Amino acid sequence: MRLRHKPYAIDKLNDNPNIVISNPQAYRGVWKDVFRNEQPIHIEIGTGRGRFIYGMAKANPHINYIGIEKFSSVIVDVLDKQLEEELPNLKLINKDAKDLTLFFADGEVDRVYLNFSDPWPKTRHEKRRLTYHSFLQNYEQVLVKGGEIHFKTDNQGLFEYSLCSISAYGMLLKYISLDLHNSEFEGNVMTEYEEKFSQKGNRIYRLEAKFQNEPAQ
Amino acid sequence: MRLRHKPYAIDKLNDNPNIVISNPQAYRGVWKDVFRNEQPIHIEIGTGRGRFIYGMAKANPHINYIGIEKFSSVIVDVLDKQLEEELPNLKLINKDAKDLTLFFADGEVDRVYLNFSDPWPKTRHEKRRLTYHSFLQNYEQVLVKGGEIHFKTDNQGLFEYSLCSISAYGMLLKYISLDLHNSEFEGNVMTEYEEKFSQKGNRIYRLEAKFQNEPAQ
Ligand SMILES: C[S@@+](CC[C@H](N)C(=O)[O-])C[C@H]1O[C@@H](n2cnc3c(N)ncnc32)[C@H](O)[C@@H]1O
Ligand SMILES: C[S@@+](CC[C@H](N)C(=O)[O-])C[C@H]1O[C@@H](n2cnc3c(N)ncnc32)[C@H](O)[C@@H]1O
Repeated sequence: MRLRHKPYAIDKLNDNPNIVISNPQAYRGVWKDVFRNEQPIHIEIGTGRGRFIYGMAKANPHINYIGIEKFSSVIVDVLDKQLEEELPNLKLINKDAKDLTLFFADGEVDRVYLNFSDPWPKTRHEKRRLTYHSFLQNYEQVLVKGGEIHFKTDNQGLFEYSLCSISAYGMLLKYISLDLHNSEFEGNVMTEYEEKFSQKGNRIYRLEAKFQNEPAQ
Repeated sequence: MRLRHKPYAIDKLNDNPNIVISNPQAYRGVWKDVFRNEQPIHIEIGTGRGRFIYGMAKANPHINYIGIEKFSSVIVDVLDKQLEEELPNLKLINKDAKDLTLFFADGEVDRVYLNFSDPWPKTRHEKRRLTYHSFLQNYEQVLVKGGEIHFKTDNQGLFEYSLCSISAYGMLLKYISLDLHNSEFEGNVMTEYEEKFSQKGNRIYRLEAKFQNEPAQ
C-alpha cells in the first residue's frame, strides 16, 4: 500500500518554501512576482512524481510551470529533482486542485495540463473526473481568453468521456491523437504513468482543447 | 481491378425505378410521398454494397432509409437484396452526394449515416472527406434542427480529423466509442468494410454528433 502522507515528506515540503508554495492563496493575481518575470504560466493538475512538469520546465525555460498535486508522498519526488538541479521556472503546490480559483486570479494562467488523471470509471463518480463540467468551469475562469487544456491518458473510457464533456462545454477540439506514440506529434515529454502503460502496450490518447469566447451552450 | 461502371448494373438499376430513384431532384421536399407514409427519413452516404442500410431497414420498419452511392457496380448489390426480399422502407439513389441539397429540401432528413467513408489521407484532398466543413454544411441544411450524424470507421486518421472538423463546426459530440466492438453499444449493424477490417483486428471507431441551433462559430 502506498503511504499517502509520509511525515518526512510533509516536513521536507515545508522546509523548501521557495519551491513548494504552501500558501498559494497569497499569490493569487501576483504569480509573476513569484517567478520574477512576465513569462506565461502553465499549470499541471495531478502532477504525481513530476517527470512531465520537470521535463517541460527544463525544455522550455521561457515558460513558467506550476505543478499541483494533492499527495505529499508523490510531489516530494518533484521537490527532490528540484533540490538536485533547481529550475527557476518551476514551482509546486501540494493542495487539492478543487480550490484552483482560490490560487489563481481570472485569466492568470496560460495553459492547463492534465496527464493520466484518475479515471473514476463509475458513473456516480463522474463529478470527480478532472474533465467534468465544474472542473472545466474552473479552468476557464483561471485561464486567459482562448486558453487551452492539453490532456493525455491511456484510459479509453476517460478519453471518450472527456471528448464529449469538452464538446458539451462548447470548447473547440483543436488536436486529437488516438495513438500518440505512433503519431507525428513532436516533443512529447512522457509522464511516469505514460512510460509504465505504454510499455505494457497501451495506446496513449492526447487532445488539445480551447475555450471559446462565446461558448456554444 | 474493380469495374466501376458495369453496363449490366446500370441497366438493372434503370429497370427498377421503384427501388432506385433515378431523378431524386423530382422528389425534393416530397420524399414522404415516395414512401407513402410520415416516417422519419435516415440517409446513408456511400452505401457501398448496402449490408448496413439493408440490415437497418429490416430491423427498423418504422424508419425510412435512403442509400446514396455513386458507383453503380456496388449499389447494384443492394438492389439485388431488395429484389430478393423487398423492404418497402428502403430506396436507393445512384448519384454523387455532393448534390445532396438538390435531392432533399431543408429539414427533410432526420439522420445522416456515414460508414467507412473514403479516408483521403492527403491534406490536399481534405475537401473530399465526407466530414469536411462543406459536407457538414450540406448535412445541416437537409437535416431537421438538432439532426444527427452517425459515423463509423476503422481509419484512425479520418476519425481524428472528423472529431476536430465536427467540433470546429460547432456541433455537439454526443457519443464516442474508440473500440465499438468491445463497447456496450447495442444493436450495431455491421457494414461490409466493418466486417472485413474488424476481422483483420482493426478497431472500429464510432461517433454521434448533433447540429446545434446556435453553432459555436
Ligand atoms: C494517476 S496519477 C498520474 C500522475 C502523473 N500525472 C502521471 O501521468 O504520471 C493522478 C495524480 O493526480 C492526483 N490528483 C487527482 N486529483 C487531484 C486533485 N483534485 N488535486 C490535485 N491532485 C490530484 C493524484 O493524487 C495522483 O497523484
Ligand atoms: C470505403 S467504401 C464503404 C462502403 C460501405 N459504407 C461500408 O462501410 O462497407 C466508401 C463508399 O462511398 C462511396 N462514396 C464516396 N464518396 C461518395 C459520394 N460523394 N457520393 C456517393 N457515394 C460516395 C464510394 O463509392 C464507396 O462505395
